[in-house]
This record gives sequence, structure tokens and C-alpha cells, in this order.
Amino acid sequence: MDKIITIGRQYGSGGHVIGKMIAEHYDIPFYDNELISKAAKESGFAEETFENAEKNATNSLLYSLAMGINVYGNQDFGFSGLSLDDRIFMAQSDVIRNVAEAGPCVIVGRCADYVLKERTDVVNLFIKASMDYRLKRVVEEYGEDPKKAGDLILKNDKRRSNYYKYHVGERWTDLSNYDLVIRSDIMGMDNAVKAIVTYLGD
Amino acid sequence: MDKIITIGRQYGSGGHVIGKMIAEHYDIPFYDNELISKAAKESGFAEETFENAEKNATNSLLYSLAMGINVYGNQDFGFSGLSLDDRIFMAQSDVIRNVAEAGPCVIVGRCADYVLKERTDVVNLFIKASMDYRLKRVVEEYGEDPKKAGDLILKNDKRRSNYYKYHVGERWTDLSNYDLVIRSDIMGMDNAVKAIVTYLGD
Repeated sequence: MDKIITIGRQYGSGGHVIGKMIAEHYDIPFYDNELISKAAKESGFAEETFENAEKNATNSLLYSLAMGINVYGNQDFGFSGLSLDDRIFMAQSDVIRNVAEAGPCVIVGRCADYVLKERTDVVNLFIKASMDYRLKRVVEEYGEDPKKAGDLILKNDKRRSNYYKYHVGERWTDLSNYDLVIRSDIMGMDNAVKAIVTYLGD
Repeated sequence: MDKIITIGRQYGSGGHVIGKMIAEHYDIPFYDNELISKAAKESGFAEETFENAEKNATNSLLYSLAMGINVYGNQDFGFSGLSLDDRIFMAQSDVIRNVAEAGPCVIVGRCADYVLKERTDVVNLFIKASMDYRLKRVVEEYGEDPKKAGDLILKNDKRRSNYYKYHVGERWTDLSNYDLVIRSDIMGMDNAVKAIVTYLGD
């Protein structure tokens, strides 16, 4: 198996766990949101970006206008008129491109499918599950309040959907974006992993 | 394997062939568009529907208005104001419900996922492939003119998408509608079938 595997997933569907299981199966690195964000913050690229952003925020009105910067000196806008969100996304994308360049791995979230779309050795997965299954997992595995689990799931899915729409420009739930979409609950999580591994090959 | 398997598929993706391979693997009946349409035409339900439709088309203005019928006696509208398309869909849906009731089988197309949505023993698949792969198949397997294959694929996908939207009210390419979406070309068709069979179990 010589592929880079990206995973998009509904909140509570077990996509994170499944990603780990796939990485373990192939003995390849596993990167999730947390690891990618941490690496982006520590990267030279990111530091430079944030430094530039701060510098630009204190620049003159004329420069600000020329560069499309928020003239109120709002730190949310830096050079090239990129928002803080955009710059963080760029730094994270850089991390994703670097880890992909290093060889086969599993990357969860952060629109990695889109970031790596020019590569030909990427397989894009999406993990989904029924609402009932996700409610159960969110309460039992994440320890969330059963009375708030439903809204939490909807809110997190909405956030992921908006994030994808904003950065990729496509619908998060459009199957055109993925090579394999799989429901984790219908036949059990172990079975879903078995099917994915069968699909990916040795 | 005690499931009823429905298959939606992009034109030229090999969904029909894959459906047949799955049916052969489990030794269960295979129903495609053609078979379902034929059965619907031959069914008592369909005959009655078409008869009623013709009868109603010659009824009085008052009756027509009361029943929401096209007052111009347009044969495209029958009782309950249903179009010919709607009535054919109803007859085909009846066939789909009947074959599903009879036991495990594979059903390709005709929004079978939606028709059988009340059942708990259904697994909904969607088969997709890259445009290049589909172009190759449409020319080599279906014998279409290479100069017209691209437009043919787009036209047929558009037709399927509209058909799904009209009858189901959802986007054909929304992954929410399926339990397993699989790209047939990335790892080869045999491998896609192996992954599906692994997912479905023995």
C-alpha cells in the first residue's frame, strides 16, 4: 500500500478511530487535526506568516489600502488581505503537503483531500454513521451530556461543512470529493476497516 | 448476507457490471432498469393505472377539476393529477417493493434506495469513477462514438440526477443517501467488488 489516505468524517462517526486503525494496519504515520495544527504553529512558515501579519497590522493607511489590509489595524487581516483563518489554513496545508511528500500516511480532517488534489497517490475516504450511533458514541466515548449530544453533533457537522465550503468551495457531503464513503455502523467498525483495507490492497 | 442491495451509479462507471458480480457472488437475483420497467408494464397494478389514466382523460370537466386533472384531457395527466412519469414510477416502485419482499437481491437504479427506505435490511451503494475511465468504458464496452462519449456521459448523469431530484427530493450525489460509495477505477473493478463483499459480509 503506497497511498496517502485522507479522511473526512461526520462528528461521532468514528472516523478518527478508523484512521488510527488503518495507520496501524499499514504501520504508517497518523496525523489528525491536533497534530497538524501543532506542527503548523511550530513551522517556520507559520511563524513568518504570523510575524508578517503583525507587522502589517501596524503599517500606514496607504500601505494598508494598497495591500487590501483592514485599515483599522485589525489583527484578523494581514498581507494580501488574508484573514487569520486563511493564514492558518495555509500553514496547515503546508504541513499536510510536507507529510504527504514524506510517504504513505493517514491524514484526518483539514480538507487534506483538497490540499493534496494535485497528487495522484492519494485516496480520499469519508466516514459516516447514523445519528443514533453517533449519539451513543458521543455520550459513551467522549463523555458528553446525553441532553446536549444531539445539538453538539449538528453544530460540529455544520462547522466542518462550513469549513470545507469556505476553503474548498464544494459541498462537504458531495460524494464527488471522495473515492470511498463508508458507513461505520451498519456492519460494525472493524468490518468497515476490513472493507477499507481490502479496497486499498496490500 | 441477508441484505437487499440497491445500486446508484454514474453513467459508464461499471455499476451495472458490479451489481451483477455481487449478485453472482451471493447467488441472489439481479434486477436492473430494464427488468423493473418490463415487470411494471406487465403487472396488474400498472395495467390498472394506465387504464384508469386513459379513462380519466376522457372524463367530464367537473370531475377533472375535482381530481386535479389537466382539463385539456392531456393524456400526460390521470387521476390524482399524477403525470405519466409519476405513475410509471409508482408501478416500478411497486415492483421494487415486491422483489425486496421476496428476499435478498441486487437492484440497480430507479431510486430503489428511496423506494425501500422504510426497510431496515437494505444497503445502499453508489458506484463512481473518473471521467477518463468512463470515457474509455463507454467507447470500448458500449461501442459509442469517441467524439460523442463525453457529452453522452454528462447527459446521462444529468438525467439520472434530475430523475433522483424529482422523485426523491434530494441531491443524487449527496453521500447522505448511501451507505457505501466506491470508486470502481482507482483500484480496479474486481477489487471494488472484493471491498463491497467484505463490507457486506458472508
